[in-house]
Amino acid sequence: MIILAIDTSTPLASIAIAVDEHIAAESVINTNRTLSARLMPEIVRLLAMLGLSSGDIDLFASSTGPGSFTGVRGGVATIQGLALATGKPCAGFSSLAMLSMNFSLSAIPICPMLDARKSEVYAALYNCSSPLPSPLLNDCVLPPNAFLNQITELTGQPVIFVGDGALRYHDRIAQELGDRAIFAPFPLQSPHAANGILLALHACKHGDMLKPSQLLPVYLRASDAELMKKKN
Amino acid sequence: MIILAIDTSTPLASIAIAVDEHIAAESVINTNRTLSARLMPEIVRLLAMLGLSSGDIDLFASSTGPGSFTGVRGGVATIQGLALATGKPCAGFSSLAMLSMNFSLSAIPICPMLDARKSEVYAALYNCSSPLPSPLLNDCVLPPNAFLNQITELTGQPVIFVGDGALRYHDRIAQELGDRAIFAPFPLQSPHAANGILLALHACKHGDMLKPSQLLPVYLRASDAELMKKKN
Repeated sequence: MIILAIDTSTPLASIAIAVDEHIAAESVINTNRTLSARLMPEIVRLLAMLGLSSGDIDLFASSTGPGSFTGVRGGVATIQGLALATGKPCAGFSSLAMLSMNFSLSAIPICPMLDARKSEVYAALYNCSSPLPSPLLNDCVLPPNAFLNQITELTGQPVIFVGDGALRYHDRIAQELGDRAIFAPFPLQSPHAANGILLALHACKHGDMLKPSQLLPVYLRASDAELMKKKN
Repeated sequence: MIILAIDTSTPLASIAIAVDEHIAAESVINTNRTLSARLMPEIVRLLAMLGLSSGDIDLFASSTGPGSFTGVRGGVATIQGLALATGKPCAGFSSLAMLSMNFSLSAIPICPMLDARKSEVYAALYNCSSPLPSPLLNDCVLPPNAFLNQITELTGQPVIFVGDGALRYHDRIAQELGDRAIFAPFPLQSPHAANGILLALHACKHGDMLKPSQLLPVYLRASDAELMKKKN
């Protein structure tokens, strides 16, 4: 089975292709403001390098957020297009669950945290002691302190923080959690779509495959445009 | 500071570029028998994507093995050439230490294990509870069972196994260590040169930078050609 997975929820986009539960190629690229120009050529390049065409892919997967609205929308649309054109199924996965898997098999809970702007973060708390992460606190969007309070109410144990939100609010996290806050070393800050492949494979095994039209972004909050519309 | 690091000790090669302790681009590609044709174009592509040229790199780093003789030699030679041409320093790091860092901050010791052919493995045991791994058993080449015996003598605790050697000798490891053997999920089997950047940065901070001529492969055993020469 050949799976292509992408994550475009942050400026550091990731693309991975697995053949029979082996990662065959992976790419992490900074797409800041150039996602639409770079994503598809990068997918085409990776496929060509492996001697594959889009028709050889059995399952197309994308993170469905949370993260940059434009990034998530671009990634989901790309995967929808590829699946529609080839008649193959899709799978979606959480960008935060995927990021937490940089610490697979960790005995310590993982807090993936992305900068959501407007003084908020997209965050969750995952138990990653097994290869498939399980949520201790579900994906949400909150001011950093409100989320840190939830962590404190849940556990007095150490927590590993990862993601650009954890970098941005580093001092506040350290202030709130003290010694219990452990920060990811910088090489493990990158999102890896390879981890998304494991999530997609799990969805596939449980019959949770989607038609392209069913693969929907999970924004967790309304866009500025929607808020404006409501106001008027 | 801009660092370029590569690992070519297995057929899955990895290249990463970091700018000021942020991974800017990373690539994992299957170079089976095509390393010499693929490595330099991939480096050039990543540099171009970031708007960089080789002259912008401050430190060139390569894993120095153990691993495929041809792979390690090709990687080291490429980094030596780039450093020589630009007048910049080099740093070397262990392919096994780098691979163990896929489990940075793990409370459980990590055994990176690469297939060394001839019924042997390149293996080590690392404590990865800090971002920089520290060896519990040094990099070596041994028959799998001899190395597993060393682990058993050292610790009765669980161990995480990662690498193509761990995949090849999966059943033997499971037989010897039973429930104590934990196997890396497949997305975390890939080598990540991004982890090599952290090792190179550490070497740099401790004044362990090398001239190109000082960057030497660590094969751990004699090549067939050398053995043949000794025999005759």
